[in-house]
Amino acid sequence: MSNSIRAEVVTIGDEILFGQITDTNTQWIGTELTNIGIRVVRKSSVGDQAQAILDVLHEAHGRADVIIITGGLGPTKDDITKKTLCDYFGVGLVRNETALAVVTGFFEKRGRPMTDLNRGQADLPANAVYIQNDWGTAPGMWFEHEGRVYISLPGVPFEMKSLMTHRFLPKLHEHFNPPIIKHKMILTAGIGESFLAERIEDWEDALPPHIRLAYLPSFGGVRLRLTATGTDDALLTRELDQQVAGVLPIIAQYVYGYDDDTLESIAGRMLKAKGWTLSAAESCTGGAVSARLTSVPGSSAYFTGSVVSYSNDVKIAQLGVSADTLATVGAVSEDTIRQMAEGVRKALNTDVGIATSGIAGPDGGTPDKPVGTVWIAVATPTETRTRLLTLGQYRDQNIQLTTTYLLNLLREQLAG
Amino acid sequence: MSNSIRAEVVTIGDEILFGQITDTNTQWIGTELTNIGIRVVRKSSVGDQAQAILDVLHEAHGRADVIIITGGLGPTKDDITKKTLCDYFGVGLVRNETALAVVTGFFEKRGRPMTDLNRGQADLPANAVYIQNDWGTAPGMWFEHEGRVYISLPGVPFEMKSLMTHRFLPKLHEHFNPPIIKHKMILTAGIGESFLAERIEDWEDALPPHIRLAYLPSFGGVRLRLTATGTDDALLTRELDQQVAGVLPIIAQYVYGYDDDTLESIAGRMLKAKGWTLSAAESCTGGAVSARLTSVPGSSAYFTGSVVSYSNDVKIAQLGVSADTLATVGAVSEDTIRQMAEGVRKALNTDVGIATSGIAGPDGGTPDKPVGTVWIAVATPTETRTRLLTLGQYRDQNIQLTTTYLLNLLREQLAG
Repeated sequence: MSNSIRAEVVTIGDEILFGQITDTNTQWIGTELTNIGIRVVRKSSVGDQAQAILDVLHEAHGRADVIIITGGLGPTKDDITKKTLCDYFGVGLVRNETALAVVTGFFEKRGRPMTDLNRGQADLPANAVYIQNDWGTAPGMWFEHEGRVYISLPGVPFEMKSLMTHRFLPKLHEHFNPPIIKHKMILTAGIGESFLAERIEDWEDALPPHIRLAYLPSFGGVRLRLTATGTDDALLTRELDQQVAGVLPIIAQYVYGYDDDTLESIAGRMLKAKGWTLSAAESCTGGAVSARLTSVPGSSAYFTGSVVSYSNDVKIAQLGVSADTLATVGAVSEDTIRQMAEGVRKALNTDVGIATSGIAGPDGGTPDKPVGTVWIAVATPTETRTRLLTLGQYRDQNIQLTTTYLLNLLREQLAG
Repeated sequence: MSNSIRAEVVTIGDEILFGQITDTNTQWIGTELTNIGIRVVRKSSVGDQAQAILDVLHEAHGRADVIIITGGLGPTKDDITKKTLCDYFGVGLVRNETALAVVTGFFEKRGRPMTDLNRGQADLPANAVYIQNDWGTAPGMWFEHEGRVYISLPGVPFEMKSLMTHRFLPKLHEHFNPPIIKHKMILTAGIGESFLAERIEDWEDALPPHIRLAYLPSFGGVRLRLTATGTDDALLTRELDQQVAGVLPIIAQYVYGYDDDTLESIAGRMLKAKGWTLSAAESCTGGAVSARLTSVPGSSAYFTGSVVSYSNDVKIAQLGVSADTLATVGAVSEDTIRQMAEGVRKALNTDVGIATSGIAGPDGGTPDKPVGTVWIAVATPTETRTRLLTLGQYRDQNIQLTTTYLLNLLREQLAG
């Protein structure tokens, strides 16, 4: 792997250091570079100070072949990336006529007036190759300098992704013609990281040097990532498949999917295979289950809808939950969750109904039913299964975990 | 600001470089350090290779007073942080009896057997101050070395946050007694970054040197962040309030909130003030609107529930949308969205009903109604407002933008 192309991703902006925005760019860039066989060796974030930017550029020059810089290209005063790039390369700013035409067109198309600040976005370091941004007003720029490639991109995720996908990734591939890195992800649920490791120890020790294994624990499961490096795409794919075939007999009962599979996409495939439809009744998850189900393109083929029944009135009127049950054992109970799952199945006329009801927090807990007490249920034409979850005290985490456990219960029940 | 305490956040793990997990830790750490007056000057991510970890530790020593290291503490073989810390500090691994008792207790409490891998989690570099982790099996560690503080934390977000909140943040504050950094965020909507900048240019130029301004554009608005540094908490708060009072008259019509306000929390406050209840009918957003509304603790005071009507049958049966309307003008139309908002308001017996219907993509578009065509509506006791959105081609982005625009329309209509 020492001869692979090395990349450093540099993010510029105080707002990232101070935690005031969520950085989704660098994860996306990491995935895309890995896919074309470029190895990310470092990610760095610095603030909007010229010296900090110069420092990281000098360092990155020493450890990477390509440096991807995002952020600091907006029209306003706190954005100093371009000036600092000029200092770093020892060049001046030059008005780029193509860039100016693109910015002008952008404003004309939207019927909005242009300011001097916007016109300034067409001024580029003299050694920049201008890369057209059809999705915004900040320029894409490509530099070659002392045997390294530097790419400068706006930080707005949509613009960055569009520019990378349509302009820079093809150009990088052509420029470096990198060796191939292939990944295979095995998704497991129901077994802890250390037990999984002990179970597959012999197989892991026998992996060839060009295939590496990593354990990625997350909510509700551990993902095993195999990474193979080489020059023959088909051979690497075959080798990875062989390794998966080798480990599968040892851990089959814990494996629920591969690679980009998600609980929601797998459940969706199983529903489609059976020709079944699905509906949801959500109380404590407040729409999160439905949102995850419908994040899958084409989910309208099996998901017909849901009732978010935050109040008891809605549970009674829309789902047919018995007022008596609510009065005697309460909304967070096995009786209620069963009626919710079966009720939404009936009300929305689907084959399967799923449901959540619990105390997400931070308020609403009692000594009897503390925050984190959650019931989930899955009702199919033949059977209703319920499960009690005992979660923690954090609202967001409780909503997220409940959603994951419910989708896993759905998957298990569809599997038979 | 040159005398402020400088921090570097170092994240260890190939999975972060390769984009295989979402890093939410460093944003959270950035926010928390900023809150106690420690200035994050760099964030770095490196892979699971000893040399890469040693390199970044040496670099960080040169530019930061405190180095926060997350990740690489799991029980399995790909985690090498502890061994590398030993090399870096020039010490050996020593079994820590307190740590062992905590790990043992963790497994006993859950009735699960312990493995040698788990016992190994109690081996710490000899110069480590063991910081008890009550939320998992990986240790927290504090090191002092050549005038710098090093903190090592597990990468699992819940464990990391719990350890930081209850153990390390108080210890850092006590150790450094840092100068004060205060932020004030002004949230705007309905004006672009460059127009906002031109409008407030004179005010911005007159800011004193210890108060800095940054523009943070995001979906549906621009946030203005003021950062003040000093030693007198009350004085800084007063100065920030004065600056806000100074700029507000110039931009009042665009300002919808401050600091941690969100559209959903603001709409919630407005509903509570009026004593009104809210329900939602969601088609293309598939639950995302409800999930955002219920992410606000206490939202059950005004949000009663919603109907996610993915299929036309559910629109007709649960919301009372006319089958005739659906047959003639379709689900993505002004007639339908009006009937959905008014229908859910009636069906769930609330004061306000809101609705979405559109083509999120990637499939389902027609020449007439391409992907990204979305209708939204807000129905109050006196008026129903509808709006047509023309969005892009990306499903996730369309769902997110529709949700934001609908919550903003709700806020506007509640404001009068």
